[in-house]
Amino acid sequence: PEMALPLWKNLLQATKERILQQRRLSLYSGAHGYEEELIKKKLQQFSGGSINLSKEDSGIGILTLNNPKLMNAFTGTMMIELQERVTELENWKDGKGLIVYGAGNTFCSGSDLNAVKEISNSQAKSLNFAYKTLLCRLPLISVALVQGRAFGGGAELTTACDFRLMTPESEIRFVHKHMGVVPGWGGGARLVRIVGSGAALQLLSGAARIGPEKALHLGFSEQTLSSSDGSRALEEARAWLSQYTEGPATVIQAMKKVVTAGRDLPLEAALRTEKDIFGTVWGGPANLQALARRPKHK
Amino acid sequence: PEMALPLWKNLLQATKERILQQRRLSLYSGAHGYEEELIKKKLQQFSGGSINLSKEDSGIGILTLNNPKLMNAFTGTMMIELQERVTELENWKDGKGLIVYGAGNTFCSGSDLNAVKEISNSQAKSLNFAYKTLLCRLPLISVALVQGRAFGGGAELTTACDFRLMTPESEIRFVHKHMGVVPGWGGGARLVRIVGSGAALQLLSGAARIGPEKALHLGFSEQTLSSSDGSRALEEARAWLSQYTEGPATVIQAMKKVVTAGRDLPLEAALRTEKDIFGTVWGGPANLQALARRPKHK
Amino acid sequence: PEMALPLWKNLLQATKERILQQRRLSLYSGAHGYEEELIKKKLQQFSGGSINLSKEDSGIGILTLNNPKLMNAFTGTMMIELQERVTELENWKDGKGLIVYGAGNTFCSGSDLNAVKEISNSQAKSLNFAYKTLLCRLPLISVALVQGRAFGGGAELTTACDFRLMTPESEIRFVHKHMGVVPGWGGGARLVRIVGSGAALQLLSGAARIGPEKALHLGFSEQTLSSSDGSRALEEARAWLSQYTEGPATVIQAMKKVVTAGRDLPLEAALRTEKDIFGTVWGGPANLQALARRPKHK
Repeated sequence: PEMALPLWKNLLQATKERILQQRRLSLYSGAHGYEEELIKKKLQQFSGGSINLSKEDSGIGILTLNNPKLMNAFTGTMMIELQERVTELENWKDGKGLIVYGAGNTFCSGSDLNAVKEISNSQAKSLNFAYKTLLCRLPLISVALVQGRAFGGGAELTTACDFRLMTPESEIRFVHKHMGVVPGWGGGARLVRIVGSGAALQLLSGAARIGPEKALHLGFSEQTLSSSDGSRALEEARAWLSQYTEGPATVIQAMKKVVTAGRDLPLEAALRTEKDIFGTVWGGPANLQALARRPKHK
Repeated sequence: PEMALPLWKNLLQATKERILQQRRLSLYSGAHGYEEELIKKKLQQFSGGSINLSKEDSGIGILTLNNPKLMNAFTGTMMIELQERVTELENWKDGKGLIVYGAGNTFCSGSDLNAVKEISNSQAKSLNFAYKTLLCRLPLISVALVQGRAFGGGAELTTACDFRLMTPESEIRFVHKHMGVVPGWGGGARLVRIVGSGAALQLLSGAARIGPEKALHLGFSEQTLSSSDGSRALEEARAWLSQYTEGPATVIQAMKKVVTAGRDLPLEAALRTEKDIFGTVWGGPANLQALARRPKHK
Repeated sequence: PEMALPLWKNLLQATKERILQQRRLSLYSGAHGYEEELIKKKLQQFSGGSINLSKEDSGIGILTLNNPKLMNAFTGTMMIELQERVTELENWKDGKGLIVYGAGNTFCSGSDLNAVKEISNSQAKSLNFAYKTLLCRLPLISVALVQGRAFGGGAELTTACDFRLMTPESEIRFVHKHMGVVPGWGGGARLVRIVGSGAALQLLSGAARIGPEKALHLGFSEQTLSSSDGSRALEEARAWLSQYTEGPATVIQAMKKVVTAGRDLPLEAALRTEKDIFGTVWGGPANLQALARRPKHK
């Protein structure tokens, strides 16, 4: 008991640092050096498709899953590219928002099982774990634009974004049960946080189709877009997201970090993290400009 | 600070082990050996009623609270029997779902106060604590079928299940305030997780009647059954639950564990636990069969 | 790994103690002795307004933010007075509920920036942190009665209460983005817990106006009052709150603590805390009276 309070403080400190540092995450977390190279070599044998990124002047990035022959399933090289693109986004000083979408009017059908089968169980687990942490740790406000189908790992990928927008004919489906598995990319833990544990248990254990209307009702989707056409839907998503990305990048990124801490940390740690994030913008350029304009009240 | 990360890892590890091992919980957690025997002897003095379990071929268990003279209030021997039935359910390899319901068209009115009065405060606390952890740690998808009344400890018991289904004239009521107490079986902490802290505070501090309509509105109940008749209501509950229990028991149990981890653990621990649970089904029989059927995509 | 379980227990113990003790919080948490006096002296230079408290026989306290010239923005002396009033409320044995409202038919516009500008960054952070913990740790059921505007820090202050009631023309707005900052008083972490992380991110990064209808829809407000007039609105709020404060103060305070633990602690810690709070009322006067009236069931 004498030890307890210092331990608790250390723990909070450690947790806070994990969030604040936003340290670059390795795709091979848990694996090191030689083993990392081995996994990478194995992944490179399963090539095809690409992950494309365009960074727009508005501070919104567009990340495209591009493997339409396989409904944008992840190949080995796409896994490697995803890590590279996320690293690029982490270092994007002017970044504020991110739209994740799939080529060919569909979202993503999970993993290319040819690649997955070849990777040993422990390696697969490292990869899976790395995946899920990638997108959701970015200090950008992220939207999954769901066209067509988001199945299995693709359904999980939508939960790594802050928001989901669906086109009228799209569907999300956690088909894991029918594949004899459960979520492993964090889709379970994140789904619970988005729709609650009861609804999450129903969606996962029922493997039910989630259309736009059901998603809206569950609070899983924010809005059903009016267009099913790729470029028009992207335009709608961009307009929706820009409501929240207007303003200085430092402030928008700090806002995202505050909400991430509030969502992912126990309250005590979240409160301290919020105070620290506040300290990074208080007295900063955006704040000083605003104070100069409105001298009297906060 | 140098110590902090190893501590954090130890903590995550410990938490994960608690969930993964699904170790058998003692009704007398906190009490050991001699004291355990003492409590058990005292409980046996307050006999009456029973806890019945039938395990159906479908993988759904039916747990019946059977003490209709006292509106299915828990006697001492019922407490002992509950532990035995839960242990049996833990070891049920083919189990996938559980329906908890009460004999005589009513759910449960809490504890037989004759028994409770005789048990000293510290003993009562051990018992209370053990109770609440029993049902909700089972790797089965559980439903409280609420007919008639679920009052006090009976209302708390409904929160230990994943879902609640109510018959048309049933009511749930956290009457604790009127008994000069607060929840002690975990009903408070669980209610907060089901309906949110604001609604939980209102339900508990208002001791208000929760009918089927209000329960649906709050997300506390999933559905109002059409029949108030015992066996018909049970049939409806069985049909409702079977939507979610179809499939191999290993997969359904793993799915329940993923959602339990997502709900009960901080995010970081939940993510690692999910990865580990994934590892228990990935490459398993159900997965291999599914891969054989669909060779191309996850 | 051998160390892990004892560590975990220590942690739970420490957490539980933090909640149970409800120890008096210092406005200057983190600062000590000499520094505390320095901050206090600096705050006293920025005087104006007051924080008034009336403790009614019903067990409901009325806390008034009183600085109508500046839309009830917090001056330095108001910060000091807030701490004093909260300490008084902590020691109020008969207290059960609290209504926080603003003078002059408006709620609060945050901080008087003249005061805030003068306080150094690290000092400001200590103050900000202290603030947010003050109200929400009280064992009283608290309501923010929002008339007129609750902007910036005022919007954050509403999240420190259990409930929000809004008058027809009122609005809450997290204007932080427009001031180049983010929440720092815990408003981010608490907002996430009240409306979910998706809605919180939208409200914060959009800095959108939240009127009574939107607040109701989001579950951010419980009810829209019928009157915009100060004393009538206060009367309505008092009637609303008294539904939940009827009964012995010991029981109502214990109920609030159970829900606070359920909301703010990880499940395992929340369950143990609930058990301990149960132990403080079980066998107490209110419980014994109730048992005497109803001898048979809990």
